[in-house]
Amino acid sequence: MSQESIRAALTWIDGDFRRGIEVGIGDDGRIASVSETSEPPTHDRIALLPGFVNAHSHAFQRALRGRGERFERPAENFWSWREAMYELVEEMDRDSMKRIAVQAYREMRRAGMTTVGEFHYLHHDSRGDWGFDEVMLEAAAEVGLRIVLLNAFYVSGGIDEPLGPAQQRFDGRSLEAYWANMDRLQTTVDGDRQRLGVVAHSIRAVPPNLVADLHEESRVRSLVFHMHVEEQLAEIEACREAYGTTPTGVLLEHLHLDDRFTAVHDTHTDPADMARYLATGARVCLCPLTEANLGDGLADVPGILAAGGRICLGSDSNARISMLEEMRLMEYGQRLRGQQRGACRDAHGRIDRVLLDAATINGAESLGVAAGRIEIGRLADFVLVDLDAPTLQDCREEDLASALVLGAAEEAIAGTLIAGRP
Amino acid sequence: MSQESIRAALTWIDGDFRRGIEVGIGDDGRIASVSETSEPPTHDRIALLPGFVNAHSHAFQRALRGRGERFERPAENFWSWREAMYELVEEMDRDSMKRIAVQAYREMRRAGMTTVGEFHYLHHDSRGDWGFDEVMLEAAAEVGLRIVLLNAFYVSGGIDEPLGPAQQRFDGRSLEAYWANMDRLQTTVDGDRQRLGVVAHSIRAVPPNLVADLHEESRVRSLVFHMHVEEQLAEIEACREAYGTTPTGVLLEHLHLDDRFTAVHDTHTDPADMARYLATGARVCLCPLTEANLGDGLADVPGILAAGGRICLGSDSNARISMLEEMRLMEYGQRLRGQQRGACRDAHGRIDRVLLDAATINGAESLGVAAGRIEIGRLADFVLVDLDAPTLQDCREEDLASALVLGAAEEAIAGTLIAGRP
Repeated sequence: MSQESIRAALTWIDGDFRRGIEVGIGDDGRIASVSETSEPPTHDRIALLPGFVNAHSHAFQRALRGRGERFERPAENFWSWREAMYELVEEMDRDSMKRIAVQAYREMRRAGMTTVGEFHYLHHDSRGDWGFDEVMLEAAAEVGLRIVLLNAFYVSGGIDEPLGPAQQRFDGRSLEAYWANMDRLQTTVDGDRQRLGVVAHSIRAVPPNLVADLHEESRVRSLVFHMHVEEQLAEIEACREAYGTTPTGVLLEHLHLDDRFTAVHDTHTDPADMARYLATGARVCLCPLTEANLGDGLADVPGILAAGGRICLGSDSNARISMLEEMRLMEYGQRLRGQQRGACRDAHGRIDRVLLDAATINGAESLGVAAGRIEIGRLADFVLVDLDAPTLQDCREEDLASALVLGAAEEAIAGTLIAGRP
Repeated sequence: MSQESIRAALTWIDGDFRRGIEVGIGDDGRIASVSETSEPPTHDRIALLPGFVNAHSHAFQRALRGRGERFERPAENFWSWREAMYELVEEMDRDSMKRIAVQAYREMRRAGMTTVGEFHYLHHDSRGDWGFDEVMLEAAAEVGLRIVLLNAFYVSGGIDEPLGPAQQRFDGRSLEAYWANMDRLQTTVDGDRQRLGVVAHSIRAVPPNLVADLHEESRVRSLVFHMHVEEQLAEIEACREAYGTTPTGVLLEHLHLDDRFTAVHDTHTDPADMARYLATGARVCLCPLTEANLGDGLADVPGILAAGGRICLGSDSNARISMLEEMRLMEYGQRLRGQQRGACRDAHGRIDRVLLDAATINGAESLGVAAGRIEIGRLADFVLVDLDAPTLQDCREEDLASALVLGAAEEAIAGTLIAGRP
């Protein structure tokens, strides 16, 4: 049964915690009302925020936690981690895929996430039948997590290279086969708790003309489009050699970019490319914990923010699943990079708003889901923060959001509601 | 009552988790035996590790959590944060100091810490009577936390500058007054659960000749010595101007450094200075979360490790209290700095051992406490890790330590034992 209304001690509205707010929830799982009230709270030791939106996950990589973390050869890096990941890929069957995805999604809910964007390229078990696509939807349904299955097209093992053995399981075959599978999946998703999105895995995995065709069809269908972009310098070099420009340059040249497009990572994006990219309305997804784990480097976040760029956050490899720590590392990485505090500040000097927007509304918009903000008509997805958590005790109310983002972790998450339900 | 023996499912011995180990605990709160056993575990879903040692804390700064995180002026940095800290200092009385310290120490135990090195420079309430020194000892006793009160000498507001108004509360007055107070405190500590250490706050706060005198007396008394060193570039510049060399240069010139000396931060230490410093046997304490929060920058950890340097970890400002996250950020900061994974690896390519040593044995040695390792004769201080924590599920046994350090937080800490007692 869905809750009819919630009066939390504190409610996050328009970038501040407010007292005396009642949030009404309709039978459709959406927010029916937001009003001031003098009634006592129904949740008197809870702060209510929009549920966190995890805009970029590879759930199966949760099985790699702690793996690939021994470094016997001198130059272990992203590419050797990828080898460990490929070993895992060849082990997977439907049962193990389901088990791992359920585990990852359970952890996400514990971390306050209410929607996941599952950037899904491991389609096939040994039979090659796209069977893992349904598995992801089933796993999310089992956990009650809202999911956007960002289904990935993947056809080459590198620019002008065939797929390697493990990569057979990613094989998108042809655009026709890809869209036929998408049509099939479309009949199984409910359009609300489960949606589809479109992905070109990367410029390594999809030639530019196919990226463009895929993207054009996603626009026709009004589906969001995600793509890995410029996480590694090697990708940029290979792209320059093959196409005479950067991956972002390829996108700007071949695609009609708009605000349904999200580039994931942009770690090494050229500032001029970034300015042109953001001017189209397109978005950026950062994955701070994964980008740190993989030693990718740090994107120019202050530059993106100054250009009005909208940044969302993803748990990516799921080496650790914590939206609070992702927000913290988004800010802290930049403090270390620039030796300057308050790197992710808005015009009012607020970092709590910028970081919480990245974890909520920006992720929701990137995924095309009407969540991410506590306002009438949006999905009734919330994270409940425990005001009695030891990590939040004795913090002043005006500092609470910063204390949460910089000083707390999952012990402060009392639970989540999705469509108003626990 | 102390536990007589513990048979955990897994026990961290010599850098690996082992099964079938029984740890016997003596009435003196020390480890009486470590033996193989075929008896079933007494703690069958627990991994037993040495308790974490927090080698650098300013407990009162816990009250700043979330404060000083709005950035209305363009160039807010370490020094403006310090202003917020000084505001707090002037508010403090014995009751608030006690309450805040108890809260910080409770959080430390929840984070698996069993010993704190309290780098204590806020000595006086408005009466100027060193009263806060006992408060720190009382707070630790109330929580059952082992404490080394690293009592700080602090006499100038900057090189050749008088103390500012808030800094009156730090005033060490004279070496005679300092040591008289230390003698007084020595009669109140039990030498086991509570010990004293000596601190020169920094080269900003203590002139070189007094640092040297203070350090020499600490050697006579066989007490550990800690000092803030080269956290900020401004300190190095001011020191060069006044003394013609870096702070580390001053130490090398004026002190008989040895392995009872720990420099805290060393963020911007010159590599040649560092080599000479480490050659004395002296140690380094890093505070990754605080150094990130303050935008200090990143020390050259691979360089320190390659020179055989022993690094310990501290929660410093207590903006967040999590030894697992400190370890993670020690490694991740370096991955971002060098765009290379496995930055904190040992000769066998192991990062879990290096990071756990930093959190345990290296901290214990830095503080002169016989903890930090599960072996006969050491203090029976342990952290109990919950093998049923969602963050650790499905990890392979050989990857468990890496999964803990990189993928988990306080939800995985089932509790601590100090001198064998919960």
